[in-house]
Amino acid sequence: MIIVMRKNSTPQQLLEVEKRIEKHGLTVQISQGVERTVIGVLGQPTDDLREELERVDGVSEVIRVSKPYKLASREFHPESTLVQVGDVVFGGDDVVVMAGPCAIENERQIIDTAEAVKKAGAGILRGGAFKPRTSPYSFQGLGLEGLKLLQSASKQTGLPIVTEIVTPEDADTVANYADILQIGARNAQNYRLLDAVATTNKPILLKHGLATTYEEWLLAAERIMDHGNNNVIMCQRGIRTFESYTRFSLDLASVPSIKLLSHLPIVVDPSHSSGRYELVIPMALAAVAAGAHGLIVEVHPEPDQALCDGAQALTFENFNKLMTLVKSVSKSLK
Amino acid sequence: MIIVMRKNSTPQQLLEVEKRIEKHGLTVQISQGVERTVIGVLGQPTDDLREELERVDGVSEVIRVSKPYKLASREFHPESTLVQVGDVVFGGDDVVVMAGPCAIENERQIIDTAEAVKKAGAGILRGGAFKPRTSPYSFQGLGLEGLKLLQSASKQTGLPIVTEIVTPEDADTVANYADILQIGARNAQNYRLLDAVATTNKPILLKHGLATTYEEWLLAAERIMDHGNNNVIMCQRGIRTFESYTRFSLDLASVPSIKLLSHLPIVVDPSHSSGRYELVIPMALAAVAAGAHGLIVEVHPEPDQALCDGAQALTFENFNKLMTLVKSVSKSLK
Amino acid sequence: MIIVMRKNSTPQQLLEVEKRIEKHGLTVQISQGVERTVIGVLGQPTDDLREELERVDGVSEVIRVSKPYKLASREFHPESTLVQVGDVVFGGDDVVVMAGPCAIENERQIIDTAEAVKKAGAGILRGGAFKPRTSPYSFQGLGLEGLKLLQSASKQTGLPIVTEIVTPEDADTVANYADILQIGARNAQNYRLLDAVATTNKPILLKHGLATTYEEWLLAAERIMDHGNNNVIMCQRGIRTFESYTRFSLDLASVPSIKLLSHLPIVVDPSHSSGRYELVIPMALAAVAAGAHGLIVEVHPEPDQALCDGAQALTFENFNKLMTLVKSVSKSLK
Amino acid sequence: MIIVMRKNSTPQQLLEVEKRIEKHGLTVQISQGVERTVIGVLGQPTDDLREELERVDGVSEVIRVSKPYKLASREFHPESTLVQVGDVVFGGDDVVVMAGPCAIENERQIIDTAEAVKKAGAGILRGGAFKPRTSPYSFQGLGLEGLKLLQSASKQTGLPIVTEIVTPEDADTVANYADILQIGARNAQNYRLLDAVATTNKPILLKHGLATTYEEWLLAAERIMDHGNNNVIMCQRGIRTFESYTRFSLDLASVPSIKLLSHLPIVVDPSHSSGRYELVIPMALAAVAAGAHGLIVEVHPEPDQALCDGAQALTFENFNKLMTLVKSVSKSLK
Repeated sequence: MIIVMRKNSTPQQLLEVEKRIEKHGLTVQISQGVERTVIGVLGQPTDDLREELERVDGVSEVIRVSKPYKLASREFHPESTLVQVGDVVFGGDDVVVMAGPCAIENERQIIDTAEAVKKAGAGILRGGAFKPRTSPYSFQGLGLEGLKLLQSASKQTGLPIVTEIVTPEDADTVANYADILQIGARNAQNYRLLDAVATTNKPILLKHGLATTYEEWLLAAERIMDHGNNNVIMCQRGIRTFESYTRFSLDLASVPSIKLLSHLPIVVDPSHSSGRYELVIPMALAAVAAGAHGLIVEVHPEPDQALCDGAQALTFENFNKLMTLVKSVSKSLK
Repeated sequence: MIIVMRKNSTPQQLLEVEKRIEKHGLTVQISQGVERTVIGVLGQPTDDLREELERVDGVSEVIRVSKPYKLASREFHPESTLVQVGDVVFGGDDVVVMAGPCAIENERQIIDTAEAVKKAGAGILRGGAFKPRTSPYSFQGLGLEGLKLLQSASKQTGLPIVTEIVTPEDADTVANYADILQIGARNAQNYRLLDAVATTNKPILLKHGLATTYEEWLLAAERIMDHGNNNVIMCQRGIRTFESYTRFSLDLASVPSIKLLSHLPIVVDPSHSSGRYELVIPMALAAVAAGAHGLIVEVHPEPDQALCDGAQALTFENFNKLMTLVKSVSKSLK
Repeated sequence: MIIVMRKNSTPQQLLEVEKRIEKHGLTVQISQGVERTVIGVLGQPTDDLREELERVDGVSEVIRVSKPYKLASREFHPESTLVQVGDVVFGGDDVVVMAGPCAIENERQIIDTAEAVKKAGAGILRGGAFKPRTSPYSFQGLGLEGLKLLQSASKQTGLPIVTEIVTPEDADTVANYADILQIGARNAQNYRLLDAVATTNKPILLKHGLATTYEEWLLAAERIMDHGNNNVIMCQRGIRTFESYTRFSLDLASVPSIKLLSHLPIVVDPSHSSGRYELVIPMALAAVAAGAHGLIVEVHPEPDQALCDGAQALTFENFNKLMTLVKSVSKSLK
Repeated sequence: MIIVMRKNSTPQQLLEVEKRIEKHGLTVQISQGVERTVIGVLGQPTDDLREELERVDGVSEVIRVSKPYKLASREFHPESTLVQVGDVVFGGDDVVVMAGPCAIENERQIIDTAEAVKKAGAGILRGGAFKPRTSPYSFQGLGLEGLKLLQSASKQTGLPIVTEIVTPEDADTVANYADILQIGARNAQNYRLLDAVATTNKPILLKHGLATTYEEWLLAAERIMDHGNNNVIMCQRGIRTFESYTRFSLDLASVPSIKLLSHLPIVVDPSHSSGRYELVIPMALAAVAAGAHGLIVEVHPEPDQALCDGAQALTFENFNKLMTLVKSVSKSLK
């Protein structure tokens, strides 16, 4: 349930509404927008309470929420959420580009990449230290050592860091080094990990699971927000379908859909779904044209030599091309 | 197998290669590009023939074709195919927009729509006369009467026509009225229909099946081209996945992928996959940014009153908005 | 809408109900079961009519039909439909096994196979004369010549014939030779073909499309039944998913689901979905245990030499094993 | 790489092979079967080593392993693995039935259910104490309190316990109470959780992820086995497809497929994929007929009152029916 207050309602009227709701054992969440004040109610209100509130002075409207998620829904919170990280803002007019290698391999690799992507106009540095790898025989990442290398690349360039976290016990460690914590696709329904990252109060980049619906994805965001952390950035990265030419199928309709359903910013990863570098630039531009607030792109000094499968990583040269085109497409939409 | 001739090779040398191939009971197809002459060979050549041809004067290279489709592959035919329909060209630098109602309902509706989309900049008029409807109780289209209405709207506006054909016996009738014959998603593997439309020699708009792979889709194009009709326009319209917020999931990665694999033009239908008009503009722009050569968009004077499910149809006003943005994004890529 | 008559209602009362419905321009379909007489109404009845009918003598209940398909629904026709073909019955207590090669190749092959499967206990002979092949370069079947070979194998063994039809214009020809007409997965939404086979009045084996829902599948059955042909046998043959170890994923939950939703018999094809002969026997037994009324199985004298991909065809020896186990599992369920 | 020793090879010859492999920095794993001794080699052997080993006395064959998983593959370990839990054995001739409620709700519920399923012939008691719930507002399970209730139900009936674990830090606690640790579908690629359960040395019930391939599923098993824990029981529970009548699509072809690819036992959960109790018995029987080594079934004293969604839970009466039919079908296959 949502209570929308009249424009000229008083603080006393607001307080009165709150008291009546809390008397029923329900929780209140107030969202004071520029346009209007909205009171969200968590829990199951009775019809009687609904009618009672409609008669309280200062109340304009009482609305039932039709979605299983509330905090994450646009019904509940009509104004778009902005997530600020250092100097960049997710959810506003500018497209934020996060770039870097799939895995941090050594100091040279991460620093060179950080400098190259910074120069090209990236706003955030990405790099994996803890990798969730399907095969136990694959490179699992440098761990803490990787985080330290990432930090030094960040200091040298001034770029904030986004990096993946794969298990609750690493929450404090990763939060010490990273500016944004990334939940990967394979952990999209790892609820205890969502609880753990939520309580670090760092912004969370929440990837779409390989086979999760928009509703389940928004419920995962809801789970994080239920801990009081509203800095959730949704990230589309491709779903699993029958098509095997691409690694995954990038569902770009999720971009305008999530913007309709939710107030949270949404970004797109055009690299992992492609599995072929030739597809990355077109899909990145498509994401921007679809309205994405940002991109997360794999860049590597020498894609052929990457310890991860480098087939989809861009060279510095291709990343420069991408940035030029992203700016051009982004500008054309304004 | 493909034989690439040297730049300075002579017609006699080309003839010599042809003779040797045909002696083995194989068929030859010559593609004389600006840059180079390429000889495609249909059938299974022996290793001996391959080696023999490498030694013929004027031959630069003999290449095995790795794909099950040949005529449709870029390996076989490296230059992009242009499909001309009246004044518009699919496969070139400009984005061709096809627009109109899902089904032709009456004269007023189709003429008003034709004029509105023409004015906004559309290049082709679409409209369904024969509808492949899942339920026997749904409106199945006006049939021949619909084609006649479509024709009069075309005459009044000068817009060429694209319309769907659903069964081989209608091939001549539909070809009499239409400039482009559309094969719908549900007939994407109706091989006898592909044979029938191929022999009309009209350009074919070949929609992607709900669950066909890129390879199967290109094999369907191959089937049409095998009848000597090379004017095939591929059309992505969404695939079936687990997501139910949208009607289908629009696989935009197919745009750059088909352009890598094939020389045929590719367009996108952002309407049917969305099922919600709010998603149509963002997905149309995304398609253009991904490199699509065109769009096919549902437009209706009064979407609420449409005989088909009108949830995804654009009003004239929204179609105007779409055209302005399409031009802007398209220009930003050049 | 369905009207259920009281047990002791009279023919006059039934007539009265019919008259009132037809006065509203709606169509009546009467289903006189052992237990009760049910009147199905096609079209959209008003609330007023519904209330009026509830008050007519002899009426026990007036029920809204919640499904978009009516003739095919169990709500509308509570008793299971039996489809008789020669001596065998689909939909009863016995599992009917249809067996034979993917494609008819020559007289020896089809007659040997017919004799072998007959001896092992098969009830119907299958074999393809018209093949819907994805590649234009694959073997497309022997056509009419194949039908004649099939007929002579049928005469020699007494086994009725099931064979695929791929285009409306072949309807009379195929109906001349076949006892059951098969609609393949790729034509599951080829509505004009459904119309054409319906009017032959032969029983129809209706395969599940690669990506059609149960509802769409039942609407395809509805389309056939709407022409007055109620002899529809549903056939599950696997759906397209992300898994690539098997060719398709055999959705056996469709067996009990269709039996809940519809009165039509349902059989299973364990061969095409598997793509590996080792999986065919376990999946055939699973289908029987799930409640399938029959099986359609690919059998070939020499699978390695099959003109179709023979990877999933059973040898005569393996088919004998299958029949022994099918009888054993089938008996264990009674 | 696998080295198969001759039947009459000596322990000295075996030792010689081991030494030569380890000299190359590779790890050896010996599997002494009744029929033959097989040496598995982990890591990337050179061609030279392969040739060298072929010439060592006592060596019968040197085989490359074609799969990315080794410990879990049947190539590497040809004899079927038996997993013993108390008196029951997974992977042998008998079908093991695990039964109980989705979530443990209170003492009465779990003890009544345990007694009912024991009496009907179940071999293991299931019940959830930690629930991975999509919505933060759903019942998340009783936690430790639930484990204690489960233990007392186990003591009263003698049934061993299988229960889910959702996060690494619970490993010791859950292992203290449970006989089998269950990894749920949503954690199927939570690699740190796989590491944590592996080291408890308890048998692991490893559910198939909603969108993981057979190969990824076997790589998850490999990850557990790589810690020296070979007691992995694979569990098919349905995959996500476009069909929405059932909650998930139960991919029963995975049963014979996993038995071809791997030596590990495989069981089936017919409850969660169905979402409707009417489908549970047919799908359970289908699983047994497909060759499953066991079943895990949801049973509740009053499904209507279940705290979880009880739509697919069986009543005691229906569970009795299921057990009778399972025994009958199972016997019919021998």
